[in-house]
Amino acid sequence: MASTKERIAIDAMGGDHAPDEIVAGAIRAAEELDVRVLLVGDPQKIRACMEKHGQKHGRRDREESGNTEPDLKSNIEIVPAEDAIAMHEEATGVRRKPKASINVAMDLVKQGKADAVISAGHSGAAMASALLRLGRIKGIDRPAIGAIFPTLLAGKSVIILDVGANVDCRPKYLEQFALMGTVYSKYVLGVDKPQVGLLNIGEESSKGNDLALRSHELLEANPEIPFIGNAEGRDVLSGNFDVIVCDGFVGNILLKFAEAVGEILLQIIREELPQGIRGQLGVGILKPNLKRLKQRIDHAEHGGALLLGVNGICVISHGSSQAPTIFSAIRLAKEAIDHRVLDRLHANYSLEKTN
Amino acid sequence: MASTKERIAIDAMGGDHAPDEIVAGAIRAAEELDVRVLLVGDPQKIRACMEKHGQKHGRRDREESGNTEPDLKSNIEIVPAEDAIAMHEEATGVRRKPKASINVAMDLVKQGKADAVISAGHSGAAMASALLRLGRIKGIDRPAIGAIFPTLLAGKSVIILDVGANVDCRPKYLEQFALMGTVYSKYVLGVDKPQVGLLNIGEESSKGNDLALRSHELLEANPEIPFIGNAEGRDVLSGNFDVIVCDGFVGNILLKFAEAVGEILLQIIREELPQGIRGQLGVGILKPNLKRLKQRIDHAEHGGALLLGVNGICVISHGSSQAPTIFSAIRLAKEAIDHRVLDRLHANYSLEKTN
Repeated sequence: MASTKERIAIDAMGGDHAPDEIVAGAIRAAEELDVRVLLVGDPQKIRACMEKHGQKHGRRDREESGNTEPDLKSNIEIVPAEDAIAMHEEATGVRRKPKASINVAMDLVKQGKADAVISAGHSGAAMASALLRLGRIKGIDRPAIGAIFPTLLAGKSVIILDVGANVDCRPKYLEQFALMGTVYSKYVLGVDKPQVGLLNIGEESSKGNDLALRSHELLEANPEIPFIGNAEGRDVLSGNFDVIVCDGFVGNILLKFAEAVGEILLQIIREELPQGIRGQLGVGILKPNLKRLKQRIDHAEHGGALLLGVNGICVISHGSSQAPTIFSAIRLAKEAIDHRVLDRLHANYSLEKTN
Repeated sequence: MASTKERIAIDAMGGDHAPDEIVAGAIRAAEELDVRVLLVGDPQKIRACMEKHGQKHGRRDREESGNTEPDLKSNIEIVPAEDAIAMHEEATGVRRKPKASINVAMDLVKQGKADAVISAGHSGAAMASALLRLGRIKGIDRPAIGAIFPTLLAGKSVIILDVGANVDCRPKYLEQFALMGTVYSKYVLGVDKPQVGLLNIGEESSKGNDLALRSHELLEANPEIPFIGNAEGRDVLSGNFDVIVCDGFVGNILLKFAEAVGEILLQIIREELPQGIRGQLGVGILKPNLKRLKQRIDHAEHGGALLLGVNGICVISHGSSQAPTIFSAIRLAKEAIDHRVLDRLHANYSLEKTN
């Protein structure tokens, strides 16, 4: 798989800014990451967006030949889908609309025509579609959404799961999340000895709610999980943990809070720094540094989250995703493909056996 | 009460930097806020800290007279306590050590010798002591810790409760938290019509875990709660909500995460902005603006959280509190006293009746 281009199916009709921004992000990824992107949805609309963004990117070849064929034949392909699930619909819509773009995209993975799928549409629908079309990996009761956060330590990330797939969890789900997170951390993020934590309100094993207390016991007792103890809210971004497990209720609130905090901070910076004459001058001088600061804080750089535990590589992006986020999501999918995360999860999720 | 000085008891022996930083913060508050501070603990140690920090503050009167009497007689009083609860002890230590500083401080409130109590020590011990010594307000099953967060809207705060007192909650607890939060928002924060939200993973009433779904029903059905719906993680700091309720497990994780994020962001700013010659120059020019920025982000500005539902005003500060945080905590206690929050909660927690 590593010798050929990664084939990534994208639900072009899903998301607040679909298909326009989805297509724009896909074009950039097809160019810069050299992956093969399969845009799933209404061919006419997709083609219109491709022309618009293709021109923006200043592609001489197409302008000269006067049609979009060269792009279609190279790294971008349009896969028609008659239907789509809107953001306000019920997740169960995926059952009523078999030809919805998200279902068609999932089928591409199932049929071996794509190596991964990305959706910025209705996340509940994407999960339902993944479960229906791809099914679960053996041994996993509940797939989990794993979000990758940057940490205080430069270049080090932490994967947090579940951030929204399962609002009410049982201890054994958290145990399975820990195993999947460990595999991901080890093989995709390249952490030699991942350190796994349980999100909790104190360091001591006696701390926590009922779920945390019982999960702590399971995590501690499982020799295949490199569990180092509880992670408090303050430890999430410290870099001391490589994998943090929690139920999808807490995880989702944390994820959305974290994203918003970044935006709020950027706004406070925009409000406070330019004040007064000194402010105006200082901000002008600091422009390149402020840009770098923005990059470190902005969540668009992180792309999306992985739906782990289904029988295929699925990236779930924000409904609000614009082109840069889609680009990052494609990069995330590419990494998961290149590092054969699915094979690793499939073969077993025993670290002992894969060593 | 407003005509006389607010009397605030502080556990001088509680916290990672006790008694030194506690005393330093208390001295500043006694001077700047003109409150009467009762420092509870080992008199010798407290007096030594007072001399050290009194001198730092450059008090001419004392230096001239050569003793600390003038301070003791005015706004600062030492109340001896033989014992103390260390940070690593069990919360139940408050039962075994009746003369611990936290117990003596609580008793001052119970006996009407102080109007509020502050602790930066073992928070579980402070809660246990408050429950044992002060008891609960009638109608409240479980006291909650309410943390006040700044929001994106300048000058607007949101109170979030519970942030750690109750890890496993029942729907009616959250209903009571909402009532207490509403009273606090209305009478202390001065919000005419507080907007109450339930922390959840989606806007729709059908979203959430079992606790959230059942709490949503209660909140919606109670005419005394100005409930406007679910608050997602991204809404916490938006300024759209005045009160947000959640169980103490989620709330504590959110609180600690939020505090850490503030510190992390300040560190990223410190790392990125001064880079290069332009960076050095720009940062020099922006110094006053950066200071203002730090003030808006730094959690030390917010002082601590309120233990609502016990029969007395209690402020719980971070174990890591230094003088500026203690100063802010005293200001928070003063505001709660001035706005008669306890009377308001006592009289009833019915907004209808108090109108």
